[in-house]
Amino acid sequence: MKPLRGISLKRFFQKHPRPDRELVLMLQDVEDPVNVGASFRTADALRCSQVVLTGISARPPHKLITKVGRGKDRRVRWRYAEDSAAAVDELRAEGFEVLALEITEDAIRVDARSYSARVCLVVGHEDHGVTRRTLERCDGSVFLPMYGKGASMNLSVALGIAAYTVLHAGKVSDAPP
Amino acid sequence: MKPLRGISLKRFFQKHPRPDRELVLMLQDVEDPVNVGASFRTADALRCSQVVLTGISARPPHKLITKVGRGKDRRVRWRYAEDSAAAVDELRAEGFEVLALEITEDAIRVDARSYSARVCLVVGHEDHGVTRRTLERCDGSVFLPMYGKGASMNLSVALGIAAYTVLHAGKVSDAPP
Repeated sequence: MKPLRGISLKRFFQKHPRPDRELVLMLQDVEDPVNVGASFRTADALRCSQVVLTGISARPPHKLITKVGRGKDRRVRWRYAEDSAAAVDELRAEGFEVLALEITEDAIRVDARSYSARVCLVVGHEDHGVTRRTLERCDGSVFLPMYGKGASMNLSVALGIAAYTVLHAGKVSDAPP
Repeated sequence: MKPLRGISLKRFFQKHPRPDRELVLMLQDVEDPVNVGASFRTADALRCSQVVLTGISARPPHKLITKVGRGKDRRVRWRYAEDSAAAVDELRAEGFEVLALEITEDAIRVDARSYSARVCLVVGHEDHGVTRRTLERCDGSVFLPMYGKGASMNLSVALGIAAYTVLHAGKVSDAPP
C-alpha cells in the first residue's frame, strides 16, 4: 500500500465526484479560532458554498484561523453577520433548509433523515450551543448520537461529521425547506 | 425547540444505544496536542475501548490535551507504544481489523464497505500521514472523499468522521481481519 501524493492523489479524488447538494456552514458565537480554522478546512474539503460567521465568532484575518485552516479562509467564501437569527431568515428565504446541530426534544439523528438540495448547518458556541432565539428560526435540528461520559464532541469534529453525513445522505427530499 | 441539558440529555442519549462494535484509535506521530486532545474527546463520545499513541505523538500528561479533550485523557483507556508497526501486529493478533485512514491506490471509501466486530483505525502524522512501514502491516486502508483545493482535513476532524462512520456501518462482516 503506497500513499498517493500530488497528481495521482488529484486523479484519485476525481474518480469520486461530489454529491450535488449545496452546503453552507453557519458558526454562531464560535469563539475559538482553532475551531473556526478547522471548520474552514472542512468547508473547503466538502466544497461548501459559504461559511457564515455570526455574533462573537472569531473571524479572519486571524493568525490561528489561517494556521489551523491551512489558509482556507482565503479560499472559501465567507461573510460575517452580527445577527444569527436574521441570517437564518435570509438563508431560508433563499431556499435553504436551515438545521441546527443541537440536541432538542425533536432533534433527528443526522444519519436518519433526508435533506433538500440546499442545506445550511448551524453550530453554536462551544459551551452554550445554538441560542434559543436562533433555534426558533431554524427548520429543525439534527444530532449525533454519543455514548460517552461527556455529552459533546469537539465543535469542529462534530460539525465535520454532521456536514459529511448531510452532504452524502442519499435522497434529496422534496419537502419544502 | 428547546435544547436539552442535564438529566433530560442523558435520557435522550439512552434511547440511542451504541452499535456493538469494538473500536480502537491509533495515533501515529500525531504531534499536535490539540489533535490528540480532540481525539480523546471523540474516543469518549464513541466509547472507544482504547487509544494507542505511538512514535512522537503528544501524550498525557499535557495541559493542552486535557484542555482540548475536556479531561477525557483521564477517562479513556490509553497506552503508549513506541513502534506503531509492532502495535499493529499486536492488535491484529488480538483479532482486530486494523485499517489506516490513508489514501493509497487500493483504499476503499470509508462509507462503502463493511467492518468486522473489532476495528482499529490508524491515523498518521499531520503532514506525512501513516508511514509505509506501518501501512504494510495494516489489513487495508480507508479514505474520505474530498472535493476541495486542499487534499486533507484537520486530523481530528478526519478521524472523527471515519470513526463515526466505521462505528455505525451496518453490517458486521465475517471476513477474517
